[in-house]
Amino acid sequence: MEKINLDQKLSLFTDYWNPRIIGELNGQHVKLAKLKGEFIWHQHEHEDELFYVVKGKLRMEFRDKSIDIHPGELIVVPKGVEHKPIAEEDVHIMLFEPASTINTGNIENELTRKNLVQL
Amino acid sequence: MEKINLDQKLSLFTDYWNPRIIGELNGQHVKLAKLKGEFIWHQHEHEDELFYVVKGKLRMEFRDKSIDIHPGELIVVPKGVEHKPIAEEDVHIMLFEPASTINTGNIENELTRKNLVQL
Repeated sequence: MEKINLDQKLSLFTDYWNPRIIGELNGQHVKLAKLKGEFIWHQHEHEDELFYVVKGKLRMEFRDKSIDIHPGELIVVPKGVEHKPIAEEDVHIMLFEPASTINTGNIENELTRKNLVQL
Repeated sequence: MEKINLDQKLSLFTDYWNPRIIGELNGQHVKLAKLKGEFIWHQHEHEDELFYVVKGKLRMEFRDKSIDIHPGELIVVPKGVEHKPIAEEDVHIMLFEPASTINTGNIENELTRKNLVQL
């Protein structure tokens, strides 16, 4: 049992839209990811998803609105709600979600990441 | 569905060792708490518990070691592991844990908080 430093873990990878697992508890994963550009519209049928912004400004688009999330802020996207993350500049986030969660949710394409690395 | 700003939520209360709920997902609660002084030795029989430090230095004591956790760092305390949080100065933390989690775990005393307020 050791503490986890987010900046140290973030220094271990550079690629975007490819979450790393940094912790597990109660069937949930704690992940870190670097984002840049636009992701795809998707939803998670069975998983609520928490985005906590560590660096940069994350724009979360929903079908009826858009919310800018800054460092020290978080948003919970409930299951079944379509969303599309956008990062105009480099964004670093921490995610909390069930271990079963796939990054692209109901969509499977070249952005889909499975068998995530644990740092 | 709105974003949550940790500092804004933290400005809404001043008392120590009395967590507030700021979010819920997948049966887990996201909580904020202010700590000062020494808590009690306890463990959670069924719940892993995540402590993320927002402000100050949290010392987490275990029976065999002690770990200092600073802002931008987190620790996951697995179920069944005795721990004792200590905050020499003001500490602000974010917690992730199952909704069933009681702050004093297997101990019930004057520090026990149930029916937490949601901010």
